[in-house]
Amino acid sequence: MNTIGKILTLTTFGESHGPAMGGVLDGMPAGVEIDLEELQRFVARRRAGQTVGASTRDEKDRVEVLSGIWQGRTLGTPIGFIVRNTDARSNDYDEIARCYRPNHADFTWEAKYGIRDPRGGGRASARETVARVVAGGMAIQLLEKLGVTIQSRIVQVGPHRDVPVEEMERVIAEAASQGDTLGGIISCTVHGVPAGMGEPLFGKLQAQLAAAMMSIPSVHGFEYGDGFDMAAKRGSEVMDTFEKRDDGSIGTVTNHSGGIQGGISNGEDITMRIAFKPVPTMMRSVPTIDRDGNPVTLQPRGRHDACVLPRALPIVEAMAALVILDNCLIKKTNVL
Amino acid sequence: MNTIGKILTLTTFGESHGPAMGGVLDGMPAGVEIDLEELQRFVARRRAGQTVGASTRDEKDRVEVLSGIWQGRTLGTPIGFIVRNTDARSNDYDEIARCYRPNHADFTWEAKYGIRDPRGGGRASARETVARVVAGGMAIQLLEKLGVTIQSRIVQVGPHRDVPVEEMERVIAEAASQGDTLGGIISCTVHGVPAGMGEPLFGKLQAQLAAAMMSIPSVHGFEYGDGFDMAAKRGSEVMDTFEKRDDGSIGTVTNHSGGIQGGISNGEDITMRIAFKPVPTMMRSVPTIDRDGNPVTLQPRGRHDACVLPRALPIVEAMAALVILDNCLIKKTNVL
Amino acid sequence: MNTIGKILTLTTFGESHGPAMGGVLDGMPAGVEIDLEELQRFVARRRAGQTVGASTRDEKDRVEVLSGIWQGRTLGTPIGFIVRNTDARSNDYDEIARCYRPNHADFTWEAKYGIRDPRGGGRASARETVARVVAGGMAIQLLEKLGVTIQSRIVQVGPHRDVPVEEMERVIAEAASQGDTLGGIISCTVHGVPAGMGEPLFGKLQAQLAAAMMSIPSVHGFEYGDGFDMAAKRGSEVMDTFEKRDDGSIGTVTNHSGGIQGGISNGEDITMRIAFKPVPTMMRSVPTIDRDGNPVTLQPRGRHDACVLPRALPIVEAMAALVILDNCLIKKTNVL
Amino acid sequence: MNTIGKILTLTTFGESHGPAMGGVLDGMPAGVEIDLEELQRFVARRRAGQTVGASTRDEKDRVEVLSGIWQGRTLGTPIGFIVRNTDARSNDYDEIARCYRPNHADFTWEAKYGIRDPRGGGRASARETVARVVAGGMAIQLLEKLGVTIQSRIVQVGPHRDVPVEEMERVIAEAASQGDTLGGIISCTVHGVPAGMGEPLFGKLQAQLAAAMMSIPSVHGFEYGDGFDMAAKRGSEVMDTFEKRDDGSIGTVTNHSGGIQGGISNGEDITMRIAFKPVPTMMRSVPTIDRDGNPVTLQPRGRHDACVLPRALPIVEAMAALVILDNCLIKKTNVL
Repeated sequence: MNTIGKILTLTTFGESHGPAMGGVLDGMPAGVEIDLEELQRFVARRRAGQTVGASTRDEKDRVEVLSGIWQGRTLGTPIGFIVRNTDARSNDYDEIARCYRPNHADFTWEAKYGIRDPRGGGRASARETVARVVAGGMAIQLLEKLGVTIQSRIVQVGPHRDVPVEEMERVIAEAASQGDTLGGIISCTVHGVPAGMGEPLFGKLQAQLAAAMMSIPSVHGFEYGDGFDMAAKRGSEVMDTFEKRDDGSIGTVTNHSGGIQGGISNGEDITMRIAFKPVPTMMRSVPTIDRDGNPVTLQPRGRHDACVLPRALPIVEAMAALVILDNCLIKKTNVL
Repeated sequence: MNTIGKILTLTTFGESHGPAMGGVLDGMPAGVEIDLEELQRFVARRRAGQTVGASTRDEKDRVEVLSGIWQGRTLGTPIGFIVRNTDARSNDYDEIARCYRPNHADFTWEAKYGIRDPRGGGRASARETVARVVAGGMAIQLLEKLGVTIQSRIVQVGPHRDVPVEEMERVIAEAASQGDTLGGIISCTVHGVPAGMGEPLFGKLQAQLAAAMMSIPSVHGFEYGDGFDMAAKRGSEVMDTFEKRDDGSIGTVTNHSGGIQGGISNGEDITMRIAFKPVPTMMRSVPTIDRDGNPVTLQPRGRHDACVLPRALPIVEAMAALVILDNCLIKKTNVL
Repeated sequence: MNTIGKILTLTTFGESHGPAMGGVLDGMPAGVEIDLEELQRFVARRRAGQTVGASTRDEKDRVEVLSGIWQGRTLGTPIGFIVRNTDARSNDYDEIARCYRPNHADFTWEAKYGIRDPRGGGRASARETVARVVAGGMAIQLLEKLGVTIQSRIVQVGPHRDVPVEEMERVIAEAASQGDTLGGIISCTVHGVPAGMGEPLFGKLQAQLAAAMMSIPSVHGFEYGDGFDMAAKRGSEVMDTFEKRDDGSIGTVTNHSGGIQGGISNGEDITMRIAFKPVPTMMRSVPTIDRDGNPVTLQPRGRHDACVLPRALPIVEAMAALVILDNCLIKKTNVL
Repeated sequence: MNTIGKILTLTTFGESHGPAMGGVLDGMPAGVEIDLEELQRFVARRRAGQTVGASTRDEKDRVEVLSGIWQGRTLGTPIGFIVRNTDARSNDYDEIARCYRPNHADFTWEAKYGIRDPRGGGRASARETVARVVAGGMAIQLLEKLGVTIQSRIVQVGPHRDVPVEEMERVIAEAASQGDTLGGIISCTVHGVPAGMGEPLFGKLQAQLAAAMMSIPSVHGFEYGDGFDMAAKRGSEVMDTFEKRDDGSIGTVTNHSGGIQGGISNGEDITMRIAFKPVPTMMRSVPTIDRDGNPVTLQPRGRHDACVLPRALPIVEAMAALVILDNCLIKKTNVL
């Protein structure tokens, strides 16, 4: 169940402190140019250390493509890739093996599998997202050739909305200095998706996007178009009236619907917002219990972000790209 | 792509004014007692006419089980069922065949398939949800035997939060009297799910629940636990501290996480909220365009709800049940 | 697990003596004309009573399409259909409920599910194939528009190869008169499949065809091209040399490969052979044991074919059509 | 579409002369001991050079496990692994890039994808099977703990049946000395599968096994139990009579059914036979055409087996193991 997608499928693997993270991107059309340097730059956006409050662990994250691309083009075969885990200090994590960190997956993982890799959170670590970014980065390159672009930005950090970057960094630094962490909201817009993408029943485009976003670690909410605000409005207030445009195309005057109607894209920008909880690992002592139920106080160790949102931007874009491209491919099978 | 689920799968079919809606529920364990009268009562909760503002179309919705249940017990074989469409007045919908109703699926459906059944919205009609409720009702019966219960309630109608039922009916009636419609928010709680359910990567329990809920017509937002509010809080404010309980079990003192950590249930109540947009079909004249881009004014006709939330409660519960039961079955394969 | 296919999926349901057999054919392209009378004629080919030795049970098998087709064309939505079970005499099957018939699924079904519907074999009855034929019949109609035709014929009945029809009927009648049954071999040829269909690794066209054919009740063997005979030959004997044809196309001079190379169609006829075991239900007394292991002698009852091959022809064609059409749709996603 | 399995899924990747072959085995239960040295020995059985006529290319094939196993036990997470391609001489394959080798996938691959990696056959090379053997080898280790064992042997080489090994090697060497190649038949027996495994409709155990075996390069036929021979027999001749055994269990006196009835295992040995075509690459000059249809004569080059059967044994066992183990896991979801 480490696979997402229908025609374009991504299967990922890897534990945080194992030899490597990796994935298999299957179903990419053949003959598509992939710029591996551009891909590496995209993956680098997810790396640690870009902003105040981010983890100082230097992950490097060099992508090693093992198959599926030859002479710069996709072969139609599965694209296998790995990213080595180079800078893991596993001895930082001995205590965690017998304790349950609050708001982490330690307890639930053990309830499910009866065993867990405690080193850096194992597969429950957000480090797994590197494989999503690699695959999504390839999807983005293909989508751009099709005229589809994806942009995301941080619209809220903690309680602060629409603050400039320096102010955001200051806010995060302040929380970090107190050993605390922050959540926030990312908005994402997909531009250029033609009308007609999405599966109208269980595979509504918003359902697929929601699943993709909610599968990102720390995400607690998803909305598209006017989202939760729409619940408070009247039908007459959110009606996206159709118009015929000068170029002969049909569009809507407003976009409360967020580019999706009846689960299918309508050609307008697809807009969504994703809510992240504050990082659960804090740089302060935390009371919890061990496997036997005895009280334990966890001391802060390791290197952790005080706010994941700056690093989450390419992850959000990658997941959006995988969903949109998959639906573009599915669309080809709808008519002869 | 009219199928949802991994082990427990539901495939549905049916257009609003075709002969019947129906579905196939596959993967139900064998030997489970299903009370068809109780099921019929559950399905009736979705029927029209229960509250002011609801459609007066009398759907009856008698469930006809065609396979998979014998002598009151599941056989392990697929449970095929249909619900006849009895009271369709297709002549109400002639004009719609060449116009695009705002916030409906007319335009996008045509962009996708090049053809659509205009009678009552065809498959884009919310009438398709009857098949979800039939299947979900069976899942609920099995979950109850396992000690899992699901409850949903309306927590917001239009801008009004936590109003009693009579007040809610009055608010909806008022909007209806103005030819307008209302959205709202439903909260849903699943009680009794053991720790360990959910697939930690792309199939996180919240991702599956989000996809299931976002696939319900009119839903624009999903959150679990503290949801979007969590984005504004600090890590220290939302920490669900572990405790050992008197019965020896391990739980959390608070439940900001909504019963899910790392994508896997932790044994606490699973809590979520689902935002619905206001009904797009209003009882007033609406300006739009036809297929050729010419301006058209649609006159109100047919019978439509001014607010879908009262009818949506069993739909939300049905979708929750299908996801939870599927994950209970998947869980059985995680260890030998 | 009652579903087959990737883009074009068929999900079936139904027990032999339940209210109806049925299915959902999802993924059919939109806008395709379906001739329901022609479909009914195709389904009738599977009916009882066509040849000597066939069951005299009159199944009628009227197809009731419930969705997905409107005004004679597919909508792109799932095509739900049922075929009522009309002529079931369930009292014939009382004894079977506690005995295990040799070479039947009674014992294994009980081992798997702990429960079984003994009436007419329940879902293990070959009656389930009617749903395959309905769905496959639609696929055949679409394939024919694409220039693809499928033909099957009986090439062996019992030990007799390539006998004319009257001789075949005589052979079957002779076995039937002795209370015995016969197996045989069906060959199937698909003409007109363009080069390039099939998924080269686990989804090789021959693998998909084999799975589809081996899922037909009583089938014990599958081969394509020269099949098992190829094992005895040298590489130099079975080489399908390429040639450029007068119309500029590329083909092969011989077709030992059966139209598939590397799991992908090469444009030549796809040829395969399917081996059926003799019918397990014989019109003679049969020794077996009951659930407790006590010896029992089953007396012949009910109405059963002495040889299924005449009725199996449209089933084989239906399964071939479903696989081929699915791969034609998948092919559309291989390149931009 | 490079994935096989339902709960236990294997996704593979890799081109013959790319950096590495690899795969992701997902769904292995947690806590299972895996002996990596034993695994390496199993993989070595597939290596070149074991018998006369086998390729002299020294593949080494060291398995590098990247995830999913920690301290010798499975974690329940996906097991990612790679096997480096070390000894590739890509310059041997320049000519093939513009020619179509008979009975190879060159032509069909190009028809499908419009592009192909000609180096060593790219992904169409039988080198891909190394990933199957790695994954299957792990499945075998788990099955053995469950009492299930798998054995395969060569029962026919070219026209020669049941010859001892030295004689077989002589026969292969003789064909090789003439620049020719041989096919053959492998029989495979799975012992110890409990009754009740397999999905009775499209996922019949024989259908899954057939698909798995037919997906192995060069396989042209599959049969189980008495297979094609069953077609020639009467029902009375192949009846597997039930008996109660001394240990109280129920079994069959004979096993014409090959351990499967109604698509579900019955507890007897599962027996099957798999037919391989002769290797298409011969050590002699071969006439063919190039991409433009011009006649070309291909000269022998590279290193190729004259008969793949000795190397195919672990591949057959690996595929059988993946199918059987997957069905053992699915079985757990059939009853509560």
